[in-house]
Amino acid sequence: MSHNTFGHLFRVTTFGESHGPALGCVVDGCPPLIPLVETDIQAFLDKRRPGQSRFTTQRREPDAVKILSGVFVEERTGRQVTTGTPIALMIENVDQRSKDYSDIKDKYRPGHADFTYDLKYGIRDYRGGGRSSARETAARVAAGAVARRVIPEVSIRGALVQMGPHRIDRTNWDWAEVDNNPFFCPDAKAAAFFADYLDGIRKDGSSIGAVIEIVAEGVPPGWGAPVYGKLDAELAAALMSVNAVKGVEIGAGFAAAELFGKANADEIRFGNDGKPLFLSNNAGGILGGISTGQPVVARFAVKPTSSILQPRATIDRHGHETEIETKGRHDPCVGIRAVPVGEAMVACVLADAFLRHRGQIGEGRAWPFPI
Amino acid sequence: MSHNTFGHLFRVTTFGESHGPALGCVVDGCPPLIPLVETDIQAFLDKRRPGQSRFTTQRREPDAVKILSGVFVEERTGRQVTTGTPIALMIENVDQRSKDYSDIKDKYRPGHADFTYDLKYGIRDYRGGGRSSARETAARVAAGAVARRVIPEVSIRGALVQMGPHRIDRTNWDWAEVDNNPFFCPDAKAAAFFADYLDGIRKDGSSIGAVIEIVAEGVPPGWGAPVYGKLDAELAAALMSVNAVKGVEIGAGFAAAELFGKANADEIRFGNDGKPLFLSNNAGGILGGISTGQPVVARFAVKPTSSILQPRATIDRHGHETEIETKGRHDPCVGIRAVPVGEAMVACVLADAFLRHRGQIGEGRAWPFPI
Amino acid sequence: MSHNTFGHLFRVTTFGESHGPALGCVVDGCPPLIPLVETDIQAFLDKRRPGQSRFTTQRREPDAVKILSGVFVEERTGRQVTTGTPIALMIENVDQRSKDYSDIKDKYRPGHADFTYDLKYGIRDYRGGGRSSARETAARVAAGAVARRVIPEVSIRGALVQMGPHRIDRTNWDWAEVDNNPFFCPDAKAAAFFADYLDGIRKDGSSIGAVIEIVAEGVPPGWGAPVYGKLDAELAAALMSVNAVKGVEIGAGFAAAELFGKANADEIRFGNDGKPLFLSNNAGGILGGISTGQPVVARFAVKPTSSILQPRATIDRHGHETEIETKGRHDPCVGIRAVPVGEAMVACVLADAFLRHRGQIGEGRAWPFPI
Amino acid sequence: MSHNTFGHLFRVTTFGESHGPALGCVVDGCPPLIPLVETDIQAFLDKRRPGQSRFTTQRREPDAVKILSGVFVEERTGRQVTTGTPIALMIENVDQRSKDYSDIKDKYRPGHADFTYDLKYGIRDYRGGGRSSARETAARVAAGAVARRVIPEVSIRGALVQMGPHRIDRTNWDWAEVDNNPFFCPDAKAAAFFADYLDGIRKDGSSIGAVIEIVAEGVPPGWGAPVYGKLDAELAAALMSVNAVKGVEIGAGFAAAELFGKANADEIRFGNDGKPLFLSNNAGGILGGISTGQPVVARFAVKPTSSILQPRATIDRHGHETEIETKGRHDPCVGIRAVPVGEAMVACVLADAFLRHRGQIGEGRAWPFPI
Repeated sequence: MSHNTFGHLFRVTTFGESHGPALGCVVDGCPPLIPLVETDIQAFLDKRRPGQSRFTTQRREPDAVKILSGVFVEERTGRQVTTGTPIALMIENVDQRSKDYSDIKDKYRPGHADFTYDLKYGIRDYRGGGRSSARETAARVAAGAVARRVIPEVSIRGALVQMGPHRIDRTNWDWAEVDNNPFFCPDAKAAAFFADYLDGIRKDGSSIGAVIEIVAEGVPPGWGAPVYGKLDAELAAALMSVNAVKGVEIGAGFAAAELFGKANADEIRFGNDGKPLFLSNNAGGILGGISTGQPVVARFAVKPTSSILQPRATIDRHGHETEIETKGRHDPCVGIRAVPVGEAMVACVLADAFLRHRGQIGEGRAWPFPI
Repeated sequence: MSHNTFGHLFRVTTFGESHGPALGCVVDGCPPLIPLVETDIQAFLDKRRPGQSRFTTQRREPDAVKILSGVFVEERTGRQVTTGTPIALMIENVDQRSKDYSDIKDKYRPGHADFTYDLKYGIRDYRGGGRSSARETAARVAAGAVARRVIPEVSIRGALVQMGPHRIDRTNWDWAEVDNNPFFCPDAKAAAFFADYLDGIRKDGSSIGAVIEIVAEGVPPGWGAPVYGKLDAELAAALMSVNAVKGVEIGAGFAAAELFGKANADEIRFGNDGKPLFLSNNAGGILGGISTGQPVVARFAVKPTSSILQPRATIDRHGHETEIETKGRHDPCVGIRAVPVGEAMVACVLADAFLRHRGQIGEGRAWPFPI
Repeated sequence: MSHNTFGHLFRVTTFGESHGPALGCVVDGCPPLIPLVETDIQAFLDKRRPGQSRFTTQRREPDAVKILSGVFVEERTGRQVTTGTPIALMIENVDQRSKDYSDIKDKYRPGHADFTYDLKYGIRDYRGGGRSSARETAARVAAGAVARRVIPEVSIRGALVQMGPHRIDRTNWDWAEVDNNPFFCPDAKAAAFFADYLDGIRKDGSSIGAVIEIVAEGVPPGWGAPVYGKLDAELAAALMSVNAVKGVEIGAGFAAAELFGKANADEIRFGNDGKPLFLSNNAGGILGGISTGQPVVARFAVKPTSSILQPRATIDRHGHETEIETKGRHDPCVGIRAVPVGEAMVACVLADAFLRHRGQIGEGRAWPFPI
Repeated sequence: MSHNTFGHLFRVTTFGESHGPALGCVVDGCPPLIPLVETDIQAFLDKRRPGQSRFTTQRREPDAVKILSGVFVEERTGRQVTTGTPIALMIENVDQRSKDYSDIKDKYRPGHADFTYDLKYGIRDYRGGGRSSARETAARVAAGAVARRVIPEVSIRGALVQMGPHRIDRTNWDWAEVDNNPFFCPDAKAAAFFADYLDGIRKDGSSIGAVIEIVAEGVPPGWGAPVYGKLDAELAAALMSVNAVKGVEIGAGFAAAELFGKANADEIRFGNDGKPLFLSNNAGGILGGISTGQPVVARFAVKPTSSILQPRATIDRHGHETEIETKGRHDPCVGIRAVPVGEAMVACVLADAFLRHRGQIGEGRAWPFPI
């Protein structure tokens, strides 16, 4: 990962600001002959798209993706497939309303990157947060849609598991519920509670944080690498790189710090299918940086949206103390829309891990055991 | 980060297994003319060295580092300094006792990388965990000692802030205490408690997890980069790559998920020195992936040592179900020795961020403001 | 360099096929506050643009570049400048005439990448060469225009110094002539000869190779790095990555193999300005991979265009032997348009070397000597 | 490639100076289960080792390699094999004679890196050239020996094809001759001539350049990648990174500039084995950056050794004009020992290309044709 690129063999480079003409990404290293049309990608962008409920920003962006390169129609099948060359994806910005931001061009919004961009670069595109806007994550979601196609045997799903101090009841977990409420919440009861809870916060001009969980099922044993290429390290980097994320954990995560060794170390048996079966998954599907074959489980904390209607003390770029309250259209809980983004990042990390594993090891290793 | 290398301009590549002839690292990209002798590095290795109290493994390794390249005596000053070429550091393994591990060569220790290494590679050096041994972190600590020299204005200190479910009382925080107890604990009272607590765990043949906090003071505003090069993303990757780490957070971290926007977004004023002063540091010194000038604060969760004397269900590489209890010499709380390792990783990340920042921006930017 | 990205701190990722909707690049890591508008880039694209004389392909492409991101208007000066975030540049394809290529979709044109793309990927966009088309170099030229802005003190100029077996007379070298003829040739007399020579080749439906020389003046001593980051190694990779290039040399190059040590090793004196002055430049401005302060001189060989009107034996993708003659619009000497491309690649390598040097060393080192 | 590392999946990082305690490399990303013992590597080091004839430096270095990590004995077979973790290789320096160099510590030897290292870094290890010494290439040869094991089906051989202005007669080419003379020359008659020729040069205290050709047979079609990952670009970087190399060409190379399109574009037919057969190999086995299945042919020019006994004008680090004649033990034609080095670099590039290809494409593609 370096600046605006991440991945090694499956590489994603993103570009674009919130209020520039367009944003997008270049996906390099994708295997060839994978069926890919724009609607495959659009489906995931639509999940992330703002303005779909009263709980997300009212900015109206169609987020329509265009594939600029890297695909071709296979003559034999008539299908459009990847060619193995870079896939450029572009999303034009439509509903920009730059005037909304003119009053904050000199003031540093607390919790935002305004201050640090200005001190680092001496300039910032202040319109909608510029490069630091959550709009950048649309490009990640688009890349993630391609990544999923690279590892179709892996199912990657995300869910909101905590809003503010309120955690879901995990015994109610139902993946089908995730699409039934505007929070991507797998606990229907909690979702009903969150609707009221977030309405209150929204009306107060406030915001709230959240915790998101991503589960990847179908990852075979062996992906990842020791030491700095550990699968958990790459997931941590990928998820921590998402706007507003301040914490990442794998499997039991921080709770593992509270466990005794016996409780933490997942015991192993053989399942009915003759394959190794772990009796628990505190490891989150990763041991020594390498996947175990159990579901890969990552969780990340999203801070509350920093753009709120309530006044906050700050300074401006001319060196004066001042106050600011952020107008414009914002998400009361930006963690909600982080669900498809987190899924996309996990997809990209796993697609890259798959290709790198296949590069070093080839196909076919793993179970049954060498001896 | 890729496999066994991390960093971009300040690059560290490590090698070596627990029971091979030697382990070490190559530090590439270090600026020239930095005074560096072996004792500068040894001081940090000695902090990490096993066998210093009854609370760490009794393996006796001198961990004596040799500089193989990259330094030369400056004629004018008579000092040995870096030359800008790769610095190779080697630590020979001395107290290996390979026989301790012969009974586990076919069995997969729960919580360890035995299973995943075998399934990925078809072979593993089972002696002491081979490449996945915590001994590899000695090379990180050595590299970290060099990194500190690259950014001497930055002070990087770590502390154990939680053992099992027991958190320190942060109002007791005293950095001076960290060197007064075998836990690197800044709360003297908690340290006294931990001594008894861990004695009990050790005698039970059990182990316990911990949470470590690293604080870097003196980081100027501007280090880091947007999107995938975010300073928090690189810290997350670096810390999550340490053995047994399952969670990383920056600043308020997971607690930020529970906050309202107003409470989370750190307000800004000017301090008595005329410099920007944040009234809180929930951001952990990083906004938009770029340092704010406040202390950079990272925390990570270390799972309990998986090598315990208590029997656990597992399978072996021949496809049989079996049980295992790990003999040999192990840490009852491997989180303790993770403190100097965490410091080293943060030092490496910051040294790299400094060089990359200087590359893109040059010297001298940052405060006072552009206009 | 990896797949479709090159550079480390100044990083360029290109995308796009000859007959897709668009091609372009993302330039990442560019320093902020550099004035940049589209016409700055267009000027260089216009040099490379086809259809400007009877000696280049008659395809009519405006090659109009759009900046999609990474720039903003500086309030104080009213100028559009870079912001330090990724600069996405897009060039839409206009004059595609895909039908020209329909008869070659199954046949492998000798000398082209048709065969290897098909065997590697199992599919290729056969329209105009797809990704392997020389049109990709437009993106390089666009990136090079940005790179030049990063190192304004460096002047990078290219010239055609050989066409077929005919070398220019170097005593006639006049940089001003380069813009006076359609060959970028610094020898007016040779240019006149080339006009006739190439007319004959064009009328025969044939093509011819060429050698291009790039000279970068104003490179300070110290850029580059030992061993694998040698400036000559990076120039070699960058230039060899250009379509149809089969050889690269630095300074005396292959002629150095014929020299005795005394004749080859450039002697050093002090010039009238008190700075070191090399009495010759067989090293091409690079010793030990690091710039000397002399002009950096690189030369590369461009093979003759493989698309010719003359029939050639080949096979098709169904496994039959056949013949092919390439119709469509092609350059009789593709080396001519390689001049601005070579300049661009050298600019990108040097901009990257500058940033990396500044990262490791900081500003201000180099002459006067340390002691 | 970056600083002292090259390769992507098969990655080599080297370290060490001519007169430090040791030099070596870390080979990361090597596939597991490849038989590897020290003598496998030593065989190649012995080819490069100095002091084997009167035509190479009389420095006596055993160049004995030690494997420090990354191998383990496979229980089933009793063989020592790679484990997939980093392979550290170390060669201790023995015959250093540092006193030979004390008189040149302040003077910049023309043609050497003394001047540029000092200006870049402000310091240099002047003993034997320090990091810029040709001794560094021992580490490359060691890495290359591992690389060959990764692609055992590929045969990589090198030969000296030109010394000074004297080219071999290619009709005399006999690979068996290469091991029969001290020049790695495939033309016995030319070798006899070179013996006399080089004796004269040696007695004059002079030196001479050379051209080396490396041929890799057995490379399947499909390795390499478009644009910046072109196989020719990576070969060019790898070979140009070797000390004293000033030119690289692939296939017909610079001679291609003199050819008409018809003569250059290799025609394709089917061979008796039913596989595609190129009727010539001007492309050097690479089209569009991807291997064709023909032998990969690269050639590089080595400048004459800059250390000669004849006096040369230069300056010193105190700012004075002076003269220097290099004493010490040197190669009259350093190109000779560049043969095993060139082979090693080609082996590393191809091993990396193989792993990357397998990563993106998987196993099994390529001939027979998709349709």
